Amino acid sequence: MIGKLNHIAIATPNLDEATKTYANILGVKISAPQDQFEHGVRVVFIEIPNTKIELLEPLGENSPVEKFLEKNKKGGIHHICFEVEDIDHAILRLEKDGATVLGDGKAKIGAHGKPVIFLHPKDFNGTLIELEEVSK
Amino acid sequence: MIGKLNHIAIATPNLDEATKTYANILGVKISAPQDQFEHGVRVVFIEIPNTKIELLEPLGENSPVEKFLEKNKKGGIHHICFEVEDIDHAILRLEKDGATVLGDGKAKIGAHGKPVIFLHPKDFNGTLIELEEVSK
Repeated sequence: MIGKLNHIAIATPNLDEATKTYANILGVKISAPQDQFEHGVRVVFIEIPNTKIELLEPLGENSPVEKFLEKNKKGGIHHICFEVEDIDHAILRLEKDGATVLGDGKAKIGAHGKPVIFLHPKDFNGTLIELEEVSK
Repeated sequence: MIGKLNHIAIATPNLDEATKTYANILGVKISAPQDQFEHGVRVVFIEIPNTKIELLEPLGENSPVEKFLEKNKKGGIHHICFEVEDIDHAILRLEKDGATVLGDGKAKIGAHGKPVIFLHPKDFNGTLIELEEVSK
């Protein structure tokens, strides 16, 4: 059902510092930071040859990244995102197979302007998984 | 410096159960499990269109995954692996730039039969990064 790995999202308490580390030590090119108020994150995108990495810093109140950083002070991998062709079909199949779609169970417009859902980590070995529709 | 994302490694306390979840819920094809005694893991490989996922279960004593599972009972993302063309060159550059190469600082033959190193998570927002040489 799932397609490509769209991105790995890594949370950090200090985006500027993380950006410098990735640029200087791993030698990757990094986008300018974007404030995504509606998602509660400040984000930079790192293009690598076959996928993307996103570095996330909490932005504003009730950021979804804030709670994660309380448990993981230095940061860590927040979620991974796979592409699907039809997110409504994916939701039906996931619920039939016993996975838990977070929120109200319906797709929302995600950080890339495309419909996304998040799956509860309890069903996937503690890994928060995002699915993003790529066809529409 | 880094090239493709080679794989995401996800640790699990129960490989059979994790395998079923990934196969049934996410609809991916999964290899037969392999016991890699020298690396202290039992592993299955999941091919997705642009990269791989590896599910890891501790094997034998002193498994590097055991300590991780003590802190993360349900499992979680253990490390991510990027490809490099020349691992000795990468080590020189990383040490010059202040990163910490784990172990004795020299490349070892990894789970895919190729030279690898691991970088200390403290330098990368709590993310354990493996580098694997792909050219030789």
